[in-house]
Amino acid sequence: MPIRVTVWGENRHERKSPKVAEIYPEGMHEAIASALRRNKDFEVNTATLEQEEHGLTDERLKNTDVLTWWGHLAHGEALDLVVERVYHRVLQGMGLIVLHSGHYSKIFRKLMGTTCDLKWRDTGEREILWITRPGHPIVEGIDDHFILPEEEMYGEFFDIPEPDETVLISSFAGGEVFRSGLTYTRGAGRIFYFRPGHEMYPTYHDKNVQRVIENAVRWAATKSPEKQVKMGNCPEGWLDKK
Amino acid sequence: MPIRVTVWGENRHERKSPKVAEIYPEGMHEAIASALRRNKDFEVNTATLEQEEHGLTDERLKNTDVLTWWGHLAHGEALDLVVERVYHRVLQGMGLIVLHSGHYSKIFRKLMGTTCDLKWRDTGEREILWITRPGHPIVEGIDDHFILPEEEMYGEFFDIPEPDETVLISSFAGGEVFRSGLTYTRGAGRIFYFRPGHEMYPTYHDKNVQRVIENAVRWAATKSPEKQVKMGNCPEGWLDKK
Amino acid sequence: MPIRVTVWGENRHERKSPKVAEIYPEGMHEAIASALRRNKDFEVNTATLEQEEHGLTDERLKNTDVLTWWGHLAHGEALDLVVERVYHRVLQGMGLIVLHSGHYSKIFRKLMGTTCDLKWRDTGEREILWITRPGHPIVEGIDDHFILPEEEMYGEFFDIPEPDETVLISSFAGGEVFRSGLTYTRGAGRIFYFRPGHEMYPTYHDKNVQRVIENAVRWAATKSPEKQVKMGNCPEGWLDKK
Amino acid sequence: MPIRVTVWGENRHERKSPKVAEIYPEGMHEAIASALRRNKDFEVNTATLEQEEHGLTDERLKNTDVLTWWGHLAHGEALDLVVERVYHRVLQGMGLIVLHSGHYSKIFRKLMGTTCDLKWRDTGEREILWITRPGHPIVEGIDDHFILPEEEMYGEFFDIPEPDETVLISSFAGGEVFRSGLTYTRGAGRIFYFRPGHEMYPTYHDKNVQRVIENAVRWAATKSPEKQVKMGNCPEGWLDKK
Repeated sequence: MPIRVTVWGENRHERKSPKVAEIYPEGMHEAIASALRRNKDFEVNTATLEQEEHGLTDERLKNTDVLTWWGHLAHGEALDLVVERVYHRVLQGMGLIVLHSGHYSKIFRKLMGTTCDLKWRDTGEREILWITRPGHPIVEGIDDHFILPEEEMYGEFFDIPEPDETVLISSFAGGEVFRSGLTYTRGAGRIFYFRPGHEMYPTYHDKNVQRVIENAVRWAATKSPEKQVKMGNCPEGWLDKK
Repeated sequence: MPIRVTVWGENRHERKSPKVAEIYPEGMHEAIASALRRNKDFEVNTATLEQEEHGLTDERLKNTDVLTWWGHLAHGEALDLVVERVYHRVLQGMGLIVLHSGHYSKIFRKLMGTTCDLKWRDTGEREILWITRPGHPIVEGIDDHFILPEEEMYGEFFDIPEPDETVLISSFAGGEVFRSGLTYTRGAGRIFYFRPGHEMYPTYHDKNVQRVIENAVRWAATKSPEKQVKMGNCPEGWLDKK
Repeated sequence: MPIRVTVWGENRHERKSPKVAEIYPEGMHEAIASALRRNKDFEVNTATLEQEEHGLTDERLKNTDVLTWWGHLAHGEALDLVVERVYHRVLQGMGLIVLHSGHYSKIFRKLMGTTCDLKWRDTGEREILWITRPGHPIVEGIDDHFILPEEEMYGEFFDIPEPDETVLISSFAGGEVFRSGLTYTRGAGRIFYFRPGHEMYPTYHDKNVQRVIENAVRWAATKSPEKQVKMGNCPEGWLDKK
Repeated sequence: MPIRVTVWGENRHERKSPKVAEIYPEGMHEAIASALRRNKDFEVNTATLEQEEHGLTDERLKNTDVLTWWGHLAHGEALDLVVERVYHRVLQGMGLIVLHSGHYSKIFRKLMGTTCDLKWRDTGEREILWITRPGHPIVEGIDDHFILPEEEMYGEFFDIPEPDETVLISSFAGGEVFRSGLTYTRGAGRIFYFRPGHEMYPTYHDKNVQRVIENAVRWAATKSPEKQVKMGNCPEGWLDKK
């Protein structure tokens, strides 16, 4: 069975900024999606903010094993109804990969329970991503570090709960550090936050970045539980009756 | 400096049910508060749902180091404004102790990022609470287990994120288990969930329960950071300018 | 590529006790191995204490993706040389599944850094195993709990470090609880401790127990990192030279 | 009651290297100890490798609430007997603060269950330590980062288990990162690993470093459990007999 991936993109910068449009002529979501499509066992779709229900209908989410999320300018425009829907699918077992400025999206903040605020600086400086969990499936095929020559800086303190696993930590030329590859579980759903991906740089064309996202999709695509866990009132003797 | 505790109670069952009123003539919040008041270094106030802004004004919260929360019937009546306020104080460093049916409160669900649902049965059965972190300050002075002869059952799966620390696990006469003493951190705030405390039983008169709550208050009352962490734009050279 | 599993058994009780021999005529290791062999993509071997180097030669371990470990009477007889060898293979990425009384083995204690002591009672009482991580690959295909009619009791406090994930918690008829399905990572290796499996009961013939072990093998069989992480002296400029 | 601290130092570099002797004329252990002694509620002693049983007799350890450990050249000379003794005291509740090159000590490796290996470079480069847990008692009174102008570099991958809490992360001028303030629990004992402290630089004279160690002593000095947890055979009915 294929892994069904939906790549969600805000798709605003690409249409406003000539520089972003030059780097990502089909949009950032298409750059991410087309890299994922090289995996024969992935079935990849895209969805964007301007579509009805942001392209994330009930039907679409039911048929999504892993959702990737990139947003920046327009977090506030995400419909609460859609955010609720994504939230419940994550708890049921859908994987979620939150990319870069998605740290500030409604869905990520709702799942974390914190502000997800951070330091930043956009001067296009060198980022080195160091692996702190060699052997983790998300960094399979990656050396013990990789370098992005130009990126936006994100710096600690990153206001998130202590992660289940810290897989990558970045340093920036300016001296800051950032936990840049992080795993969480909420309900049956696996969540991966992955820092790089500012719209002004060709980050999603980088082969290491592509490999991490591809690995993260495989990692997050666990089977959802076959049946819903029983909740609520369990009268005496229910255990023996089963 | 004393530890300033606010004991928050929904205060509904006590006024509706003669049985609850008999067990807790001054209300559950008063039972909890008066046990805490035996600690000379605690300064204990109470607040309840029916008060204006549920007794949790800005002023009050600013002067609270640790808030305890018991609610059940009326989670939906908690004003979003007040929930937001409590939430931001937790992130700033206020401790929060969520008691029993408070698992389903708006504030706990917001901080956890999950549904916080569970199994339950109210037949007044024996609960044994086992310590899984001997030496943890929250269980100081407690033996390796303690018994409540009659309690409501809560059973797994408890839909919460993996806790920072699992301090207590309960078994029930019916065979269920429950993670009943759990710690989390959100921002600078420490959170403790403590399971026992159904309104129909004299649980808050139990000396072990009282001791755990008292210990948890001390544990959760860390000093808030003296100054706010710098967030947002950090232009080149900011590190050297300091 | 198949998952190469080595099932290690102490193989003492089976040859000493007629009751154990009746339940496990080919030995406990063979019962575990033959259940795993139903998976076409597993390549399953066994090894036992009485073999030279306990059957765990360098060659064998190099060709093992996941090792399962059951021991009880003779933990002290395990050669330190072999324990070191297993230890280094785990750090390199070999999965390790520690079964029941294996909690007290040299290898588990070395990897945990604690005594791994616990309470116990062998009266053949009912054990209920509750799932605390629905959706986790280790409990795929398992309902929200399962029951073993007769088992040895293990009770908390179980002296282990806080697990990465608590997947299963048991209750016993006598009222004790135990964290009975636990994950850890050491280096690149994934470790799963799974409680049930006293030699006096037909536990390894139980279909839920077999399913959990099978799932755990798949979960623990991550690919080892392709190249060793660079350690030690990294002179100035090493990053740019690469 | 005072917090009884024992500052343990290898005390070799100080007597071999004129440069180290100049920075730490009384030895590194004395520099650490004298900073701690400014706390009126600390009772501070020192112990060194060359003393009988390394100064860590049964008596001394019984009367130590928190032990700090600095070693480098002579990890192999630490007597196994003494390492065992420290180990058991940690499990019983003694706090342990492992400093800098102590990452490679027998006691830290035994408690971690991993190799504790890392990258390093000693060229006296700038280290920036970033706080990733504002509000944590260990960083009380510290800004969101602090700088050491010259230090040895330690780089990831640091082969340790996923920490309970990552409190500090360092960046180095050369571009490496390192998890430099980490908490663990083993048994009832709290462990803090704190990276800085190469013998060639005046790191232990730095006021932020001193404050972190002082805070860590307070954090690690939890009360030991008053009575030993019952382990081993618990015959039927033991719960009711109590």
